[in-house]
Amino acid sequence: MKVAVLGYGTVGVGVYGMLANAAGLEQGPVLVRPGKENEPFKVSSLAAILEDPTVGAVAEVMGGVEPAFTYACAAMRAGKHFVTSNKALVAAKGVELNRLAREQGVAFLFSAACGGAVPFLHNLALARESDTILSLGGILNGTTNYMLDAMQRLGLDYADVLADAQRLGYAEADPTADVSGLDALRKIMLACAVAYDLLPTEGLLNEGIESITAADVAHFQARGYTCRLVVSGGRSADGGVYAYVEPVLLRAGSPECSVLENYNMARYEGQCAGSIVLMGQGAGRWPTASAVLRDLSGILRGERSMFSAACAEGAADNGGSVHGYYVRLPAALAGALPAESVEKEGGIARLITAPMSVKAMHEAVKALRAQGAAVFFAAIKE
Amino acid sequence: MKVAVLGYGTVGVGVYGMLANAAGLEQGPVLVRPGKENEPFKVSSLAAILEDPTVGAVAEVMGGVEPAFTYACAAMRAGKHFVTSNKALVAAKGVELNRLAREQGVAFLFSAACGGAVPFLHNLALARESDTILSLGGILNGTTNYMLDAMQRLGLDYADVLADAQRLGYAEADPTADVSGLDALRKIMLACAVAYDLLPTEGLLNEGIESITAADVAHFQARGYTCRLVVSGGRSADGGVYAYVEPVLLRAGSPECSVLENYNMARYEGQCAGSIVLMGQGAGRWPTASAVLRDLSGILRGERSMFSAACAEGAADNGGSVHGYYVRLPAALAGALPAESVEKEGGIARLITAPMSVKAMHEAVKALRAQGAAVFFAAIKE
Repeated sequence: MKVAVLGYGTVGVGVYGMLANAAGLEQGPVLVRPGKENEPFKVSSLAAILEDPTVGAVAEVMGGVEPAFTYACAAMRAGKHFVTSNKALVAAKGVELNRLAREQGVAFLFSAACGGAVPFLHNLALARESDTILSLGGILNGTTNYMLDAMQRLGLDYADVLADAQRLGYAEADPTADVSGLDALRKIMLACAVAYDLLPTEGLLNEGIESITAADVAHFQARGYTCRLVVSGGRSADGGVYAYVEPVLLRAGSPECSVLENYNMARYEGQCAGSIVLMGQGAGRWPTASAVLRDLSGILRGERSMFSAACAEGAADNGGSVHGYYVRLPAALAGALPAESVEKEGGIARLITAPMSVKAMHEAVKALRAQGAAVFFAAIKE
Repeated sequence: MKVAVLGYGTVGVGVYGMLANAAGLEQGPVLVRPGKENEPFKVSSLAAILEDPTVGAVAEVMGGVEPAFTYACAAMRAGKHFVTSNKALVAAKGVELNRLAREQGVAFLFSAACGGAVPFLHNLALARESDTILSLGGILNGTTNYMLDAMQRLGLDYADVLADAQRLGYAEADPTADVSGLDALRKIMLACAVAYDLLPTEGLLNEGIESITAADVAHFQARGYTCRLVVSGGRSADGGVYAYVEPVLLRAGSPECSVLENYNMARYEGQCAGSIVLMGQGAGRWPTASAVLRDLSGILRGERSMFSAACAEGAADNGGSVHGYYVRLPAALAGALPAESVEKEGGIARLITAPMSVKAMHEAVKALRAQGAAVFFAAIKE
């Protein structure tokens, strides 16, 4: 099967390169911007690719919702299988693309959009056919994991590790999507859609790592905790789906603590299978390309979809997930949260809350920040 | 697709149970011994199952090479897809069954035979289509992992943890296949066949955990090491395939050290994907059944094989894998091995060898044991 590649950036170069040695696959044309056609395999006309009957599949690795969405629809309508690494696209338009792919009888696969080289969505889609997926989670953003790991191992402050991550190419010039938790949130949205037929687009909660300081790290490390930015999803007791991202304090020995540097770890809990944990590199040219190629090989074996025909957009419900939190805030505002213990020093309070819902916690902190308060918080997992 | 189940022991009950709720699958007849047909779905005639045109696939979960092999051939010849959890069967007859399945145009899948619920072989088979698999490994025997973990965490001796493992159902009455490393060896044989088209049946080396003592554990724990029974496979520099099982001493922080109790961990290193680590329960009714069911769901999507058409039996070559070893042996025999350091006390020597090949080490210890010497050894991985 000849595969056209849309985009020739970091991942596109990897996908095109791997196609040369993949069983049953063949390098097709690569779409680049007009004026960038400096090699024979590069073209700037999508129409030429879609009209080429020898092209069986299109791999989109440009990123961003547009023009990727327009190109995806055009490719599917032209009868081409469609594979993407683009989590923004699938989070925003996945349900629509799933419907179109099924109408057109083509594949719509996006392993690389969640966990990079970690074979998460593919296995989740297979497992859900026979098992009940009780919960989902893990560490799905390598940039923030690298930063938290460096802060904790080297005692560095946030601004320093961010600068390091940017110098090493782990963080982009504008790191907002990573450090705010939005990138990780998009990935757990996709995993929920695969596992539960619900792509949550409302009611989502994401707290990133932007407010963590070296003093916070020193404080909770002295109490035996390691911090990771963790995604959580699952079925709530009333049948809804929860999906959120927040920093979590873990005890040494948790599987999350063995995720070092920029690695990713994805986890699902099956009622029958039990806990399945998958680790690997979550980003980078070759790891990401390897996931795109696995999807393409899957198409050759008959794999067509990750979302079921029933998959629809809807709202997440984070009111039923309850746990205790570690919070650092101005001492004068410590009374705003239900505390089980409070330490105050130099105008700062550090408290452990009573168990409270994820929704209540994120909303309380939003209200405190609206008053101008500097707040860091993290869930506590014993 | 209606699925017949051969065997109604621990795993058979799980497979039959899961079929009731699996998308696109249906409970078929279950083969039991004559006289055991105490429920309507149980039958004692294989012929009746194979002549039933509504049965699309057969799941074999009896264990042992015969009669499983005869039944597998009969099922394939009757045009039924064949799925098994039986590692002894696939290690002994996998190449022949792969050929027959391809002739008959039916599926031959066996995820559950290697790693239980861990989705290892399936992902390896997909990854090798586009990536070069540099090495394979992990902890693929839950019984010995439980035993080693208990010895190290609780300071117990071998006989005590074996008795505990038997009481908990983790070890069988005759634990030889587990504690000798043979069970783990069969699993790495299958993984090599998937990754390299070579099912190694000669030249294999396996050292189990039968000779480890509480004194050994205390000695290497004091030096910062944790012991795990680790499988290793890969391409050697000259293009051969290595495959062996041996105890390995690891530093805290190695991913293997986070594998506790009876969990399994499988790993492959792809040239593009990098290191992919998969963890889950390696045995038990529901975890094993979940892997059988994933294979059956895979058949519905078009998955047909884990071994390529080129897969053949051959010899492993363990002469090119070189590392240092920790060895405990009678002090009088310490000169038999190339030592970098030796400690002697009470007639016992504990030494660290110079780097030597896996083949040379296993053969040297075999010769020492032939002289009646009690020897424990483990590879050292820094």
